[in-house]
Amino acid sequence: MAGAEPLLDALVEALRRLPGVGVKSAQRMAFHLLQRDRDGARRLAAALEQAAEGVHHCVRCHTFTADTVCATCLDPARDARQLCVVETPADQAAIERTGSYRGLYFVLMGRLSPLDGIGVHDIGVAPLLERATDGSVDEVILATGFSAEGEATAHALAGALRARGLKVTRLARGVPAGSELEHVDLGTIAHALVDRR
Amino acid sequence: MAGAEPLLDALVEALRRLPGVGVKSAQRMAFHLLQRDRDGARRLAAALEQAAEGVHHCVRCHTFTADTVCATCLDPARDARQLCVVETPADQAAIERTGSYRGLYFVLMGRLSPLDGIGVHDIGVAPLLERATDGSVDEVILATGFSAEGEATAHALAGALRARGLKVTRLARGVPAGSELEHVDLGTIAHALVDRR
Repeated sequence: MAGAEPLLDALVEALRRLPGVGVKSAQRMAFHLLQRDRDGARRLAAALEQAAEGVHHCVRCHTFTADTVCATCLDPARDARQLCVVETPADQAAIERTGSYRGLYFVLMGRLSPLDGIGVHDIGVAPLLERATDGSVDEVILATGFSAEGEATAHALAGALRARGLKVTRLARGVPAGSELEHVDLGTIAHALVDRR
Repeated sequence: MAGAEPLLDALVEALRRLPGVGVKSAQRMAFHLLQRDRDGARRLAAALEQAAEGVHHCVRCHTFTADTVCATCLDPARDARQLCVVETPADQAAIERTGSYRGLYFVLMGRLSPLDGIGVHDIGVAPLLERATDGSVDEVILATGFSAEGEATAHALAGALRARGLKVTRLARGVPAGSELEHVDLGTIAHALVDRR
Protein backbone atom coordinates (compact mmCIF):
# COMPACT_ATOMS: atom_id res chain seq x y z
CA MET A 1 0.00 0.00 0.00
CA ALA A 2 2.93 2.26 -0.85
CA GLY A 3 1.54 5.47 -2.39
CA ALA A 4 -1.73 5.11 -0.54
CA GLU A 5 -0.12 5.12 2.90
CA PRO A 6 -0.29 8.87 3.58
CA LEU A 7 -4.01 8.85 2.69
CA LEU A 8 -4.68 5.78 4.84
CA ASP A 9 -2.63 7.12 7.74
CA ALA A 10 -4.47 10.45 7.60
CA LEU A 11 -7.81 8.63 7.63
CA VAL A 12 -6.83 6.41 10.59
CA GLU A 13 -5.52 9.47 12.45
CA ALA A 14 -8.76 11.39 11.84
CA LEU A 15 -10.92 8.43 12.93
CA ARG A 16 -8.89 8.13 16.15
CA ARG A 17 -10.16 11.55 17.24
CA LEU A 18 -13.64 10.06 17.66
CA PRO A 19 -14.38 9.30 21.32
CA GLY A 20 -13.75 5.66 22.24
CA VAL A 21 -11.82 4.82 19.05
CA GLY A 22 -8.24 3.51 19.36
CA VAL A 23 -5.68 2.65 16.69
CA LYS A 24 -6.98 -0.87 16.00
CA SER A 25 -10.61 0.26 15.76
CA ALA A 26 -9.62 3.15 13.50
CA GLN A 27 -7.69 0.80 11.20
CA ARG A 28 -10.65 -1.60 11.05
CA MET A 29 -13.01 1.30 10.27
CA ALA A 30 -10.73 2.66 7.53
CA PHE A 31 -10.34 -0.78 5.94
CA HIS A 32 -14.09 -1.42 6.14
CA LEU A 33 -14.97 1.92 4.53
CA LEU A 34 -12.42 1.64 1.71
CA GLN A 35 -12.96 -2.03 1.01
CA ARG A 36 -16.68 -2.53 1.53
CA ASP A 37 -18.45 0.81 1.88
CA ARG A 38 -16.99 3.70 -0.16
CA ASP A 39 -20.49 5.05 -0.51
CA GLY A 40 -20.70 5.12 3.31
CA ALA A 41 -17.34 6.93 3.45
CA ARG A 42 -18.54 9.63 1.05
CA ARG A 43 -21.87 9.91 2.86
CA LEU A 44 -20.12 10.31 6.22
CA ALA A 45 -17.81 12.96 4.75
CA ALA A 46 -20.81 14.90 3.44
CA ALA A 47 -22.75 14.56 6.71
CA LEU A 48 -19.73 15.82 8.68
CA GLU A 49 -19.25 18.79 6.34
CA GLN A 50 -22.93 19.75 6.44
CA ALA A 51 -23.25 19.39 10.21
CA ALA A 52 -20.00 21.27 10.91
CA GLU A 53 -21.22 24.02 8.57
CA GLY A 54 -24.93 24.15 9.35
CA VAL A 55 -25.29 23.35 13.06
CA HIS A 56 -24.90 26.38 15.33
CA HIS A 57 -25.73 27.21 18.92
CA CYS A 58 -28.97 29.03 19.69
CA VAL A 59 -27.91 32.50 20.91
CA ARG A 60 -30.49 32.32 23.74
CA CYS A 61 -30.29 28.74 25.09
CA HIS A 62 -27.11 27.37 23.45
CA THR A 63 -28.75 24.19 22.12
CA PHE A 64 -27.93 22.96 18.60
CA THR A 65 -29.94 24.74 15.91
CA ALA A 66 -29.66 25.54 12.22
CA ASP A 67 -31.00 29.06 12.88
CA THR A 68 -29.91 31.96 15.10
CA VAL A 69 -32.58 31.29 17.73
CA CYS A 70 -34.06 27.78 18.19
CA ALA A 71 -37.75 26.96 17.78
CA THR A 72 -38.24 26.36 21.52
CA CYS A 73 -36.92 29.82 22.46
CA LEU A 74 -39.14 31.41 19.77
CA ASP A 75 -42.30 29.54 20.92
CA PRO A 76 -44.66 32.21 22.43
CA ALA A 77 -46.60 29.47 24.29
CA ARG A 78 -43.63 28.66 26.56
CA ASP A 79 -43.42 30.17 30.06
CA ALA A 80 -40.44 32.55 29.95
CA ARG A 81 -40.33 32.83 33.75
CA GLN A 82 -38.93 29.31 34.16
CA LEU A 83 -35.46 28.38 32.91
CA CYS A 84 -34.41 24.71 33.05
CA VAL A 85 -30.64 24.08 32.92
CA VAL A 86 -29.60 20.75 31.31
CA GLU A 87 -26.26 19.22 30.32
CA THR A 88 -27.00 18.22 26.71
CA PRO A 89 -29.61 18.49 23.92
CA ALA A 90 -30.36 14.80 24.65
CA ASP A 91 -31.31 15.67 28.25
CA GLN A 92 -33.48 18.52 26.94
CA ALA A 93 -35.22 16.08 24.60
CA ALA A 94 -35.83 13.66 27.51
CA ILE A 95 -37.55 16.40 29.55
CA GLU A 96 -39.59 17.49 26.50
CA ARG A 97 -40.85 13.92 26.07
CA THR A 98 -42.38 14.00 29.58
CA GLY A 99 -44.74 16.75 28.36
CA SER A 100 -44.77 18.18 31.91
CA TYR A 101 -42.58 21.25 31.45
CA ARG A 102 -43.65 24.39 29.60
CA GLY A 103 -40.79 26.76 30.46
CA LEU A 104 -37.59 27.49 28.53
CA TYR A 105 -34.14 25.88 28.62
CA PHE A 106 -30.46 26.62 28.87
CA VAL A 107 -28.22 23.85 27.51
CA LEU A 108 -24.75 23.81 29.12
CA MET A 109 -23.29 21.45 26.46
CA GLY A 110 -21.41 19.57 29.15
CA ARG A 111 -20.74 19.60 32.87
CA LEU A 112 -17.85 20.60 35.05
CA SER A 113 -15.22 17.87 34.78
CA PRO A 114 -11.79 19.06 35.97
CA LEU A 115 -10.18 15.69 35.17
CA ASP A 116 -11.17 16.12 31.50
CA GLY A 117 -10.12 19.76 31.54
CA ILE A 118 -13.72 21.00 31.29
CA GLY A 119 -14.21 24.12 33.42
CA VAL A 120 -16.74 26.94 33.81
CA HIS A 121 -15.66 28.53 30.53
CA ASP A 122 -16.29 25.35 28.50
CA ILE A 123 -19.85 24.83 29.71
CA GLY A 124 -20.81 28.49 29.24
CA VAL A 125 -21.53 29.57 32.81
CA ALA A 126 -21.14 33.26 31.94
CA PRO A 127 -23.77 33.15 29.13
CA LEU A 128 -26.11 31.27 31.52
CA LEU A 129 -25.75 33.95 34.22
CA GLU A 130 -26.37 36.64 31.59
CA ARG A 131 -29.44 34.83 30.28
CA ALA A 132 -30.82 34.13 33.77
CA THR A 133 -30.50 37.80 34.79
CA ASP A 134 -32.06 39.32 31.66
CA GLY A 135 -35.19 40.22 33.65
CA SER A 136 -37.57 37.57 32.27
CA VAL A 137 -36.57 34.65 34.55
CA ASP A 138 -38.11 34.06 37.99
CA GLU A 139 -36.89 30.51 38.67
CA VAL A 140 -33.91 28.48 37.47
CA ILE A 141 -34.45 24.70 37.62
CA LEU A 142 -31.12 22.82 37.73
CA ALA A 143 -31.59 19.57 35.82
CA THR A 144 -27.97 18.47 35.45
CA GLY A 145 -27.38 14.77 36.04
CA PHE A 146 -27.04 13.15 39.45
CA SER A 147 -23.52 11.87 38.77
CA ALA A 148 -20.75 13.33 40.94
CA GLU A 149 -19.89 15.77 38.13
CA GLY A 150 -23.52 16.72 37.51
CA GLU A 151 -24.00 17.39 41.23
CA ALA A 152 -20.82 19.48 41.40
CA THR A 153 -22.00 21.49 38.38
CA ALA A 154 -25.43 22.08 39.98
CA HIS A 155 -23.76 23.14 43.25
CA ALA A 156 -21.50 25.66 41.52
CA LEU A 157 -24.35 27.09 39.43
CA ALA A 158 -26.74 27.32 42.40
CA GLY A 159 -24.26 29.46 44.32
CA ALA A 160 -23.67 31.85 41.43
CA LEU A 161 -27.39 32.14 40.57
CA ARG A 162 -28.56 32.67 44.17
CA ALA A 163 -25.88 35.36 44.60
CA ARG A 164 -27.73 37.22 41.81
CA GLY A 165 -31.03 37.01 43.68
CA LEU A 166 -32.62 34.25 41.58
CA LYS A 167 -34.83 31.45 42.90
CA VAL A 168 -32.97 28.18 42.24
CA THR A 169 -34.50 24.70 42.42
CA ARG A 170 -33.11 21.23 41.68
CA LEU A 171 -34.83 18.16 40.20
CA ALA A 172 -36.09 16.03 43.12
CA ARG A 173 -34.02 13.00 44.07
CA GLY A 174 -36.00 9.90 44.93
CA VAL A 175 -37.16 6.43 44.01
CA PRO A 176 -37.60 5.98 40.22
CA ALA A 177 -41.18 5.45 39.04
CA GLY A 178 -42.16 1.79 38.75
CA SER A 179 -39.26 0.43 40.79
CA GLU A 180 -39.36 -2.03 43.70
CA LEU A 181 -37.88 -0.53 46.84
CA GLU A 182 -35.71 -3.60 47.53
CA HIS A 183 -33.88 -3.12 44.22
CA VAL A 184 -33.18 0.60 44.74
CA ASP A 185 -29.71 1.55 45.99
CA LEU A 186 -29.38 2.78 49.56
CA GLY A 187 -28.22 6.30 48.65
CA THR A 188 -31.37 6.86 46.61
CA ILE A 189 -33.62 5.59 49.43
CA ALA A 190 -31.79 7.79 51.92
CA HIS A 191 -32.32 10.83 49.71
CA ALA A 192 -35.97 9.94 49.16
CA LEU A 193 -36.43 9.77 52.94
CA VAL A 194 -34.79 13.15 53.51
CA ASP A 195 -36.75 14.79 50.67
CA ARG A 196 -40.09 13.18 51.60
CA ARG A 197 -43.15 15.36 51.09
CA MET B 1 -32.43 21.45 18.41
CA ALA B 2 -35.26 22.06 15.98
CA GLY B 3 -33.84 23.09 12.59
CA ALA B 4 -30.59 21.23 13.22
CA GLU B 5 -32.25 17.84 13.66
CA PRO B 6 -32.07 16.65 10.03
CA LEU B 7 -28.34 17.47 9.96
CA LEU B 8 -27.71 15.74 13.30
CA ASP B 9 -29.79 12.71 12.34
CA ALA B 10 -27.92 12.37 9.04
CA LEU B 11 -24.58 12.54 10.88
CA VAL B 12 -25.62 9.92 13.47
CA GLU B 13 -26.93 7.68 10.68
CA ALA B 14 -23.66 7.99 8.73
CA LEU B 15 -21.53 7.28 11.83
CA ARG B 16 -23.58 4.16 12.55
CA ARG B 17 -22.30 2.61 9.32
CA LEU B 18 -18.85 2.35 10.88
CA PRO B 19 -18.14 -1.19 12.15
CA GLY B 20 -18.83 -1.60 15.87
CA VAL B 21 -20.72 1.69 16.24
CA GLY B 22 -24.31 1.61 17.54
CA VAL B 23 -26.86 4.40 18.03
CA LYS B 24 -25.57 5.53 21.44
CA SER B 25 -21.92 5.59 20.31
CA ALA B 26 -22.87 7.45 17.13
CA GLN B 27 -24.80 10.07 19.12
CA ARG B 28 -21.85 10.50 21.50
CA MET B 29 -19.47 10.86 18.54
CA ALA B 30 -21.70 13.42 16.81
CA PHE B 31 -22.10 15.45 20.02
CA HIS B 32 -18.36 15.32 20.69
CA LEU B 33 -17.44 16.47 17.18
CA LEU B 34 -19.96 19.32 17.05
CA GLN B 35 -19.42 20.51 20.60
CA ARG B 36 -15.71 20.00 21.19
CA ASP B 37 -13.94 19.20 17.93
CA ARG B 38 -15.36 20.85 14.79
CA ASP B 39 -11.85 20.97 13.43
CA GLY B 40 -11.68 17.18 13.90
CA ALA B 41 -15.02 16.82 12.09
CA ARG B 42 -13.77 18.82 9.10
CA ARG B 43 -10.46 16.95 9.11
CA LEU B 44 -12.24 13.58 9.16
CA ALA B 45 -14.51 14.70 6.31
CA ALA B 46 -11.48 15.71 4.24
CA ALA B 47 -9.58 12.49 5.05
CA LEU B 48 -12.60 10.40 4.04
CA GLU B 49 -13.03 12.31 0.77
CA GLN B 50 -9.36 12.06 -0.11
CA ALA B 51 -9.06 8.38 0.77
CA ALA B 52 -12.29 7.44 -1.06
CA GLU B 53 -11.02 9.37 -4.06
CA GLY B 54 -7.32 8.57 -4.04
CA VAL B 55 -6.99 5.02 -2.75
CA HIS B 56 -7.33 2.37 -5.45
CA HIS B 57 -6.49 -1.31 -5.78
CA CYS B 58 -3.20 -2.31 -7.39
CA VAL B 59 -4.13 -4.00 -10.69
CA ARG B 60 -1.56 -6.76 -10.04
CA CYS B 61 -1.88 -7.60 -6.31
CA HIS B 62 -5.10 -5.80 -5.31
CA THR B 63 -3.57 -4.05 -2.29
CA PHE B 64 -4.42 -0.40 -1.57
CA THR B 65 -2.35 2.02 -3.65
CA ALA B 66 -2.59 5.57 -4.97
CA ASP B 67 -1.17 4.41 -8.32
CA THR B 68 -2.17 1.82 -10.90
CA VAL B 69 0.49 -0.69 -9.80
CA CYS B 70 1.84 -0.63 -6.23
CA ALA B 71 5.50 -0.07 -5.33
CA THR B 72 5.97 -3.70 -4.18
CA CYS B 73 4.77 -5.13 -7.50
CA LEU B 74 7.05 -2.69 -9.39
CA ASP B 75 10.13 -3.51 -7.26
CA PRO B 76 12.61 -5.39 -9.58
CA ALA B 77 14.43 -6.81 -6.50
CA ARG B 78 11.44 -8.96 -5.51
CA ASP B 79 11.30 -12.63 -6.50
CA ALA B 80 8.42 -12.86 -8.99
CA ARG B 81 8.34 -16.66 -8.75
CA GLN B 82 6.81 -16.56 -5.27
CA LEU B 83 3.31 -15.21 -4.66
CA CYS B 84 2.13 -14.83 -1.06
CA VAL B 85 -1.66 -14.65 -0.62
CA VAL B 86 -2.85 -12.60 2.39
CA GLU B 87 -6.24 -11.42 3.62
CA THR B 88 -5.55 -7.70 4.12
CA PRO B 89 -2.95 -4.95 3.57
CA ALA B 90 -2.35 -5.10 7.35
CA ASP B 91 -1.38 -8.79 7.05
CA GLN B 92 0.91 -7.92 4.14
CA ALA B 93 2.54 -5.20 6.24
CA ALA B 94 3.05 -7.69 9.10
CA ILE B 95 4.89 -10.11 6.78
CA GLU B 96 6.95 -7.25 5.33
CA ARG B 97 8.05 -6.26 8.83
CA THR B 98 9.60 -9.72 9.38
CA GLY B 99 12.05 -8.95 6.54
CA SER B 100 12.16 -12.68 5.69
CA TYR B 101 10.11 -12.69 2.49
CA ARG B 102 11.33 -11.31 -0.85
CA GLY B 103 8.56 -12.53 -3.17
CA LEU B 104 5.39 -10.78 -4.32
CA TYR B 105 1.89 -10.65 -2.85
CA PHE B 106 -1.75 -11.03 -3.69
CA VAL B 107 -4.09 -9.31 -1.25
CA LEU B 108 -7.55 -10.92 -1.10
CA MET B 109 -9.13 -7.98 0.79
CA GLY B 110 -11.05 -10.39 2.97
CA ARG B 111 -11.68 -14.10 3.41
CA LEU B 112 -14.53 -16.43 2.63
CA SER B 113 -17.25 -15.81 5.21
CA PRO B 114 -20.62 -17.21 4.10
CA LEU B 115 -22.36 -15.94 7.26
CA ASP B 116 -21.39 -12.36 6.34
CA GLY B 117 -22.29 -12.95 2.69
CA ILE B 118 -18.64 -12.81 1.58
CA GLY B 119 -18.04 -15.35 -1.18
CA VAL B 120 -15.39 -16.11 -3.82
CA HIS B 121 -16.44 -13.11 -5.91
CA ASP B 122 -15.96 -10.63 -3.03
CA ILE B 123 -12.40 -11.72 -2.22
CA GLY B 124 -11.31 -11.78 -5.86
CA VAL B 125 -10.53 -15.46 -6.38
CA ALA B 126 -10.79 -15.16 -10.16
CA PRO B 127 -8.18 -12.32 -10.37
CA LEU B 128 -5.91 -14.37 -8.07
CA LEU B 129 -6.15 -17.44 -10.35
CA GLU B 130 -5.46 -15.23 -13.36
CA ARG B 131 -2.47 -13.63 -11.63
CA ALA B 132 -1.07 -16.96 -10.39
CA THR B 133 -1.25 -18.50 -13.88
CA ASP B 134 0.33 -15.61 -15.78
CA GLY B 135 3.52 -17.65 -16.26
CA SER B 136 5.78 -15.91 -13.74
CA VAL B 137 4.67 -17.73 -10.58
CA ASP B 138 6.21 -21.04 -9.42
CA GLU B 139 4.86 -21.20 -5.90
CA VAL B 140 1.81 -19.77 -4.16
CA ILE B 141 2.20 -19.35 -0.40
CA LEU B 142 -1.17 -19.24 1.33
CA ALA B 143 -0.86 -16.87 4.28
CA THR B 144 -4.51 -16.37 5.14
CA GLY B 145 -5.23 -16.39 8.88
CA PHE B 146 -5.58 -19.56 10.96
CA SER B 147 -9.12 -18.77 12.02
CA ALA B 148 -11.81 -21.15 10.76
CA GLU B 149 -12.63 -18.75 7.94
CA GLY B 150 -8.98 -18.20 7.02
CA GLU B 151 -8.40 -21.98 6.91
CA ALA B 152 -11.51 -22.50 4.78
CA THR B 153 -10.30 -19.80 2.41
CA ALA B 154 -6.85 -21.42 2.18
CA HIS B 155 -8.43 -24.83 1.58
CA ALA B 156 -10.62 -23.53 -1.25
CA LEU B 157 -7.73 -21.62 -2.86
CA ALA B 158 -5.32 -24.58 -2.56
CA GLY B 159 -7.71 -26.81 -4.49
CA ALA B 160 -8.24 -24.31 -7.30
CA LEU B 161 -4.52 -23.46 -7.56
CA ARG B 162 -3.32 -27.09 -7.52
CA ALA B 163 -5.88 -27.94 -10.21
CA ARG B 164 -4.01 -25.40 -12.39
CA GLY B 165 -0.70 -27.17 -11.80
CA LEU B 166 0.78 -24.69 -9.31
CA LYS B 167 2.90 -25.57 -6.29
CA VAL B 168 0.91 -24.48 -3.25
CA THR B 169 2.30 -24.10 0.28
CA ARG B 170 0.76 -22.91 3.52
CA LEU B 171 2.31 -20.95 6.39
CA ALA B 172 3.59 -23.49 8.94
CA ARG B 173 1.56 -24.18 12.01
CA GLY B 174 3.91 -22.10 14.08
CA VAL B 175 1.18 -19.49 14.07
CA PRO B 176 -1.12 -20.03 17.07
CA ALA B 177 -4.44 -21.49 15.95
CA GLY B 178 -7.43 -19.13 15.92
CA SER B 179 -5.43 -15.91 15.84
CA GLU B 180 -5.32 -13.08 13.31
CA LEU B 181 -2.05 -12.72 11.44
CA GLU B 182 -1.69 -8.99 12.05
CA HIS B 183 -1.59 -9.56 15.84
CA VAL B 184 1.06 -12.31 15.77
CA ASP B 185 4.63 -11.55 16.91
CA LEU B 186 7.26 -11.21 14.19
CA GLY B 187 9.40 -14.21 15.25
CA THR B 188 6.44 -16.56 14.96
CA ILE B 189 5.60 -15.26 11.50
CA ALA B 190 9.25 -15.61 10.43
CA HIS B 191 9.38 -19.25 11.62
CA ALA B 192 6.09 -20.00 9.91
CA LEU B 193 7.50 -18.66 6.65
CA VAL B 194 10.64 -20.85 6.90
CA ASP B 195 8.61 -23.94 7.86
CA ARG B 196 5.97 -23.51 5.17
CA ARG B 197 4.72 -26.81 3.79
